[in-house]
Amino acid sequence: METHSAGPGPLSGVLRDIEDAIPEAARIVGGHLRRTPVEAFHGLDEWAGVSLHVKAENRQRTGSFKVRGALFRLSTVPEGTPVVAASAGNHAQGVAFAAATRNLEARVWMPRNAALPKIEATRAYGAEIELVDGTVDDCIREARTQAESSGAVYVAPFDDPKVIAGQGTLGLELADQMPGDISTVLVPVGGGGLVSGVALALARARPGIRVVGVEAEGAAAMQASLRAGRLVELPSVATIADGLALKRPSQLTFDIARECGIEVVTVDDDAIARAMLALLERAKTVVEPAGAVGVAAAAEGLVGKDTPVGVVLSGGNVDPQVLAKLIDHGLAAAGRHLRLNCILPDRPGSLAGLTSAVAEMDLNILSVEHHRAAPGVPVDHVEVMVHVETRNPRHSVEVVAELERRGFYVETE
Amino acid sequence: METHSAGPGPLSGVLRDIEDAIPEAARIVGGHLRRTPVEAFHGLDEWAGVSLHVKAENRQRTGSFKVRGALFRLSTVPEGTPVVAASAGNHAQGVAFAAATRNLEARVWMPRNAALPKIEATRAYGAEIELVDGTVDDCIREARTQAESSGAVYVAPFDDPKVIAGQGTLGLELADQMPGDISTVLVPVGGGGLVSGVALALARARPGIRVVGVEAEGAAAMQASLRAGRLVELPSVATIADGLALKRPSQLTFDIARECGIEVVTVDDDAIARAMLALLERAKTVVEPAGAVGVAAAAEGLVGKDTPVGVVLSGGNVDPQVLAKLIDHGLAAAGRHLRLNCILPDRPGSLAGLTSAVAEMDLNILSVEHHRAAPGVPVDHVEVMVHVETRNPRHSVEVVAELERRGFYVETE
Repeated sequence: METHSAGPGPLSGVLRDIEDAIPEAARIVGGHLRRTPVEAFHGLDEWAGVSLHVKAENRQRTGSFKVRGALFRLSTVPEGTPVVAASAGNHAQGVAFAAATRNLEARVWMPRNAALPKIEATRAYGAEIELVDGTVDDCIREARTQAESSGAVYVAPFDDPKVIAGQGTLGLELADQMPGDISTVLVPVGGGGLVSGVALALARARPGIRVVGVEAEGAAAMQASLRAGRLVELPSVATIADGLALKRPSQLTFDIARECGIEVVTVDDDAIARAMLALLERAKTVVEPAGAVGVAAAAEGLVGKDTPVGVVLSGGNVDPQVLAKLIDHGLAAAGRHLRLNCILPDRPGSLAGLTSAVAEMDLNILSVEHHRAAPGVPVDHVEVMVHVETRNPRHSVEVVAELERRGFYVETE
Repeated sequence: METHSAGPGPLSGVLRDIEDAIPEAARIVGGHLRRTPVEAFHGLDEWAGVSLHVKAENRQRTGSFKVRGALFRLSTVPEGTPVVAASAGNHAQGVAFAAATRNLEARVWMPRNAALPKIEATRAYGAEIELVDGTVDDCIREARTQAESSGAVYVAPFDDPKVIAGQGTLGLELADQMPGDISTVLVPVGGGGLVSGVALALARARPGIRVVGVEAEGAAAMQASLRAGRLVELPSVATIADGLALKRPSQLTFDIARECGIEVVTVDDDAIARAMLALLERAKTVVEPAGAVGVAAAAEGLVGKDTPVGVVLSGGNVDPQVLAKLIDHGLAAAGRHLRLNCILPDRPGSLAGLTSAVAEMDLNILSVEHHRAAPGVPVDHVEVMVHVETRNPRHSVEVVAELERRGFYVETE
């Protein structure tokens, strides 16, 4: 009989079964996957201050690792059995894609406010979409009810040994692709399916390697659970990394994290936005916020900067609309945008004086708003908001100082 | 003695010298370069309607192919000799990087309105930057004057046999990396240095392959020159592909294009923006507008869709600020944005009625503007501009029809 130890210890039966299943999963699902490359970029390393080897799983079929677990789970579904799932994004696409490879009917419950491109992509793989006025949890309830009443198979996003074994195939590839001097691997953590699979795969293929999970600061349920020594449910979550916005991992992923000795670190939204921007500019690659947390953690120095680090870019599915907003956020977080609020006398030439000063400082104006009536502004003055591009945080400080030297009253956000 | 033939014919002496120099260039510069991969993406092929094999030169050191030519040209500069160049972007970074590898002093003239990240990147490679109030042509004049008076070596962006041989190294890699069934390769054309080098390399390594240059419709100087049978200078250029905005190729690149029988096709700004967006969403890769023209041409069917096509993604240096704008442009060009101008009675509840109708149609509102005084709007009415997200052009038409059915007066842009 197996017992769970309180800390890292010998793997229990279920865990050993998952570990054993990973190579089988790789054989079964490999033909439907890309073997995504592990790459290094001088410019990215320079920015992060550490040598990074990134696994470009954002270029996986369907745009994320989720397809691995879905393919392996569905490989065990009997011919002709319909499958159901619930998701706001990557798991939906993974299940829809996997179902298509086996000609299974798939129905996926998605929140009505899910990103339109994700809904469209899921539909394009041939799944039937049910839009729900509610959260992903509401969708899960609907999908499960449907499964129970119809005999369809419900495909869980992470709380399933087969799904975890499927995600583990990424760990096998990593073991094969990473240079030998990498001793730390950073893996995003939402429900914990990916980090569990990767840790189990590496435990066998690269024993001794340190697997560090990265959570969004506003959704750090695994870290809270490991600290408490039991599964903890957060009262609420708030993060730009929508793929990681979960209130709790599952008992299974928590047990694996604990038994494999997975450490968990957290990064905040600004760090995530800066990492996304660095990946766009310096690796020319699009990652979704959840996919950027590993690079963010490395750049923040959370696992040290002296030795090369492996990082899983877990997915690249970001609504272009949202990407444009995140670029803006990333530029602001990196001190490359400056929003100036200036209070000027309400007379002809005031605005021209300000814009001339800005031009003389070689600043590129991104936008201007001019308000004659604004709260807290004297009636004979106007408020002008000028949004300019700057080189870095130091330059932003210099710009404000120079405008003040020229006699402008300036507030910054 | 060599003579130039009017059409494709035996290569003249200079051209043969360049062709001969390409393998030498590959040996000399290879150590400083990434061998950028050739990749295929199911989602991209599906979108374009043709099988594409893209050479990811956007992930080259310095973010573009320009570094190849600069490295080979600078390999012939005597030790200790300073170099000068003029550019608004990729050539500046290529020369600065190449100079650093040889410890040569580099001074680069750039227009004051060049993108700030490109100026910063060039500076970061160690070059001294001279900002000029004027165009790239003004910068070239300054750099040449400086070279003449100081003994520095002026590095031309494309009108130089060594630079063209350097760009040709990309063609050698292509010949080696592309599947054997590819018979057509699409290459962006600005000054013509890249397409010349690639055509010369492939003429030897893959004889019979069809090299097609792609110009921006608003800057199609090579196409105009080939049609006229002589070098033509355009009176003006206008394109979002800033890397291709040149009024004329050089005599040398024109001669190579003519003698190698390079065809040239053109794509407009909307097609370029759609291709950039498809590359972001479906290949998770960032290309600058100039780097996307090949994919745009393939998707437009300009080289046929029956056989696989090789495409060079020549660069990925796009100011994030501009990228955000281009995403917006691409979504509009793809019919995934809809701007509605509605004229409503100026009374309480009018706006609520419109926004409720939009909500009932499950449309995501991106922005709303409400104007009480607008030209052409009756005094007892207001103009409301609503910007919504749509699935595709057909959906946009349905949205307008449904709003009209509900009694709204709607204009679209």
